[in-house]
Amino acid sequence: MERIYVFDTTLRDGEQVPGCQLNTIEKIQIAQALELLGVDIIEAGFPISSPGDFNSIIEISKAVTWPVICALTRAVEKDIEVAAEALKYAKRKRIHTGIGTSDFHIRHKFNSTREQIIERAVKAVTYARNFVDDVEFYAEDAGRTDNEYLAQVVQAVVNAGATVINIPDTTGYCFPDDYGAKINYLANNVNLKGTILATHCHQDLGMATANTISGVINGARQVEVTINGIGERAGNTSLEEVVMALKSHKDRGFDTNINTQHIYSTSRMVSSLMNMPVQPNKAIVGRNAFAHSSGIHQDGVLKNVETYEIIDPKDVGIDDNAIVLTARSGRAALNNHLERLGVKLDSFELDKVYQKFLELADQKKSINDDDILILVGKEGRLNRITIDFLQVVCGIGVRDVASIGLNIAGEHFEATATGNGPVDAAIRAVKNIIRREMKIQEFLIQAIDHGSDDIGKVHMQVEYNGNHYYGFSANTDIVAASVEAYIDAVNKFVDN
Amino acid sequence: MERIYVFDTTLRDGEQVPGCQLNTIEKIQIAQALELLGVDIIEAGFPISSPGDFNSIIEISKAVTWPVICALTRAVEKDIEVAAEALKYAKRKRIHTGIGTSDFHIRHKFNSTREQIIERAVKAVTYARNFVDDVEFYAEDAGRTDNEYLAQVVQAVVNAGATVINIPDTTGYCFPDDYGAKINYLANNVNLKGTILATHCHQDLGMATANTISGVINGARQVEVTINGIGERAGNTSLEEVVMALKSHKDRGFDTNINTQHIYSTSRMVSSLMNMPVQPNKAIVGRNAFAHSSGIHQDGVLKNVETYEIIDPKDVGIDDNAIVLTARSGRAALNNHLERLGVKLDSFELDKVYQKFLELADQKKSINDDDILILVGKEGRLNRITIDFLQVVCGIGVRDVASIGLNIAGEHFEATATGNGPVDAAIRAVKNIIRREMKIQEFLIQAIDHGSDDIGKVHMQVEYNGNHYYGFSANTDIVAASVEAYIDAVNKFVDN
Repeated sequence: MERIYVFDTTLRDGEQVPGCQLNTIEKIQIAQALELLGVDIIEAGFPISSPGDFNSIIEISKAVTWPVICALTRAVEKDIEVAAEALKYAKRKRIHTGIGTSDFHIRHKFNSTREQIIERAVKAVTYARNFVDDVEFYAEDAGRTDNEYLAQVVQAVVNAGATVINIPDTTGYCFPDDYGAKINYLANNVNLKGTILATHCHQDLGMATANTISGVINGARQVEVTINGIGERAGNTSLEEVVMALKSHKDRGFDTNINTQHIYSTSRMVSSLMNMPVQPNKAIVGRNAFAHSSGIHQDGVLKNVETYEIIDPKDVGIDDNAIVLTARSGRAALNNHLERLGVKLDSFELDKVYQKFLELADQKKSINDDDILILVGKEGRLNRITIDFLQVVCGIGVRDVASIGLNIAGEHFEATATGNGPVDAAIRAVKNIIRREMKIQEFLIQAIDHGSDDIGKVHMQVEYNGNHYYGFSANTDIVAASVEAYIDAVNKFVDN
Repeated sequence: MERIYVFDTTLRDGEQVPGCQLNTIEKIQIAQALELLGVDIIEAGFPISSPGDFNSIIEISKAVTWPVICALTRAVEKDIEVAAEALKYAKRKRIHTGIGTSDFHIRHKFNSTREQIIERAVKAVTYARNFVDDVEFYAEDAGRTDNEYLAQVVQAVVNAGATVINIPDTTGYCFPDDYGAKINYLANNVNLKGTILATHCHQDLGMATANTISGVINGARQVEVTINGIGERAGNTSLEEVVMALKSHKDRGFDTNINTQHIYSTSRMVSSLMNMPVQPNKAIVGRNAFAHSSGIHQDGVLKNVETYEIIDPKDVGIDDNAIVLTARSGRAALNNHLERLGVKLDSFELDKVYQKFLELADQKKSINDDDILILVGKEGRLNRITIDFLQVVCGIGVRDVASIGLNIAGEHFEATATGNGPVDAAIRAVKNIIRREMKIQEFLIQAIDHGSDDIGKVHMQVEYNGNHYYGFSANTDIVAASVEAYIDAVNKFVDN
C-alpha cells in the first residue's frame, strides 16, 4: 500500500467561506478533532491576513502534538517572517508559500512575466527555508498553467529546497483526465529529488474528488482537503469522500492514516461550529447518505446490504441504516417495519395492508410507526403524548416564555418556562412535565420559502438512555414545528 | 460539436428522496420547467409503484409537448403494460425497462443465473417494443458488472430492439477511469447498430459528474441527471454540473440543448417544491458558488473576473457576483465597497482604514455597509430602521400575533398584526408601518445545533421595485432572527 498524506485546510481555505469564520477556541477544538481523526498536516491559517489568524496559529500549535502545522503565505518576505513567528510553538512546522503561475495570474494579477514569476517563487522558497525545513510551494491556478512552463517552475522550486509541491486547480476547471495528465507530466518531467506532489482541487464543476483521485493515481502523494468539502464558492475537496474512495478501492493500492470511524463526528463538529448545515444528500456524511426509500432498492437492501451500499455506515461512525417508508417503499420494507413493531402478517394480509399503505403514502409524505399500526387495524400506542396547546411569547426586548399543555395517557398536564429563545423556552416547559434525562443531539430547521408563511421542516434527534430517537415535523409556525418534532422523538421512547 | 442528450430523472430517481415527494400539480410545474430548460427526455415516474405515480405520468404527458416522456419499469410484463397505459397521452414516449446484471444482484436479489437474466432482459425489451418504438434498457449495477458479461447483455437487448442502453453505476462505486473504460469497452465490443449508450451515475463517492463526463468522452451520448443532483442516498448526477462542464470545455466538442440561462430558476423551483435547500457551496447553483470572500482572491476578481471564475454567473441566470467582506477580504475588496458607497480614499488613508477593518472583522463575522461607513468616520445612513422591540405570541391552538416597534429616522412607530406563523405575523406588522410593495423572494433558516438554545441563521431576499435586496441575521431566537434579516434587507432600499 502506498501511503497518501492527508493535508486538511478546513481552518484556512475552508474558513474563507462567508459566515463561517471561527474564533480561536473553535479553531482549537477543530484542530484537536483533526488530530484525533489522523490528519497528517493541518493548515491552520494565513497569519499575515489578520491578527486573529496569527493568534489562532500560535494557540493551535500549542494545543496539537502530532500533525504538522502549516501556515500560508504569499511569495512575500514579510508574509514568510510573520508565518515563521506564528509557527514558533509548533512541534512540527511547515510554511506554505507560492504564487500564481497561469497566464491569467501572471498578466492580470501580477502584471509580470513568466521569468519574473519563477524568480519570485525561488526567492520565496529560499527565504522560507531560512526559517523551517519543511516548505511547501503552491503554483496557484496550476490547473490553467501549461504543463511545460509549470514543470520549469516546479523544477526551480525543487532545486531551491521545496519539500512539497502543491498543484492547485484553483478555479475547479480541470477534468480528471486533464488533471491526472498534469500530475503525470510533472512526475515524469521534473527531477523531484524526493519532493512530494500534492493535489488541491476545487468543486466548481463538481469534480474535486475525482480530480484528486486522478492526481493520486498519477503520482501525487498528498491530498489537500477540507471536512464536508467546505470552502469558497462551490468548495474544496471533501476529506471524507477522498478517504472513503481510497478505502473502498483498496485494489488501487493507496492508504491514509485516517481513522475513518471519527469521520462522522468531525463532520458534525465542523458543521456545527461553522454554522454550515451538511446537505442531506452529501456523500458519506449527509443524513440520507445511507438511507434507502425506493421500493426496488429496499428489497435489495434487506436481502443483502452490499447490493446497494458500498460503504458500511459503521466505518464512518454512523450506527444506523435507517430505512424510511414512503410511497416508493416496497412490500419487503413495509414487512420489515411491521416486524420491528411486533406485527407478523402472512403474504395475503401483507398484500392487503400494502395496498392501503400505498394509498396513504400518496397523500402523506412520510409514514410513521403509528400510521402503520393504524393500517394493520391496531391502535397506536395508548400512551402517546399529544400537544393540547402551546403558547409562546418571544421577540426582541422581551423575556421568552412558553406555556404548554400535554396529554399523556389521557391525562392533562401543564407547565411554563422561560428560555433562551422560543424553542428553548418551550422545550424547558416540556421538561418540567416529562422529567427525564433527554438531550437534544441535533436540531435542524429547514425553511425555504417564497414567503413568510410557507412551511418549515424540523428534524430533531434526542438522546435518552444512551439511544438516539428521531423526530420530525412540518408547520407554518417554525416554533410549533420544533416542539412537535421534539414530542415526536420523545414519543418513541416514552411508554407511560 | 457532438450532441449529448439530456435525460432528466428528477421526477423519478430524484423524487425517491425521503421527504421530497411531490403531488401531481407540483410534478407538472417541474416538467414544464424542464421543457423550458431544453431537457430532451423527462423520466416522469415509475407507474406500477403507486397510483399517484401513474396519474402523474398521465398529467405530465398532457402538459408537456416537446420532450420525450419516459416511464420506468422492472423487467416484468405487468409493469410494462401499466407503463404503456400511463404513457398513452405522451406525444413522444419511451419505456425504460431493465434488470440487475451484477453478480450481487443476480445472486442476492434475483436468486438467478447470468443466462436467465439475459433471457429476462430480452423478453422485457421485446415485450416493450410491442407498445412503443423507443425502448431504453438499464443494466442495473452495471458499475459492478464485469465488462465481458455486460457486453453480452447489451448485445442481446440491442438485437431485441432497445434504442438506448443505460449503464448505471447504481452504487456510485466507480472511479472515472473505470467507468470511462466500461463505456469504451461497450462501444468497441458491441455491435450497437445505432443504439445510444447512456450514463447514469450516483454520488456516493462524490464522483457522479466526473464519471458522467468520462462516459461522454468515451462514447456515451445520453446523460441521466437530476436538478441539484437530488436523489437517493448521496444523490444523482447534477444536470447543472454536467451541462456547464461541457459548456466550459467546448474544446472537447460536446454540446447539449439546454438553455443554461434557465438553470438557476429551475434549481430554485425544484428546491422549493421538494423542500430541499441547496447547500450554499453547491457547484453552479449554490448561494456561494460565485461569491468570493478571500483577500487574495478578491483582489484577483476585481482585476479580472476570469482570474477566479470559469463560469459567468449570468450564463446560468444569476445576475450578481456578490463580494462579501470578511476578515479575509483584501484592500482591493474594501476599496471597491467604499467606492460603491461613494467614499474615495488615497492609498495612505486606505491602509489606515484597512487596519481598523481587520480588527473589526476579527470580532464580527460579516461586515455591512454601515460598519464600513463608521470605520471611515462617517455615520451610517441617518434614516436607518432599527427595531425598538418585538413581541410575538405563537404556538399551537393560539392565534399568532406580533407587535413591533420600529425607529425610523429617529421617530418611533408601532404596529400589530396576526399571521400564519410567528414570522408571518411579525412581517405583516412591519408592513403596517412601512407601506411598500415588498415581496420576500427567498427565506432560508439554518439552525444546526446540539441544543435548543443555539444560534439560528436567517438569510432573506426581498424584492422591491424590481430589485433584490439581501438581509441576514443570527440570533438564538429564530423568530427574532427572521425579523432582523427582513429589516436588514429593507434597510438597503429604504432611504427615508
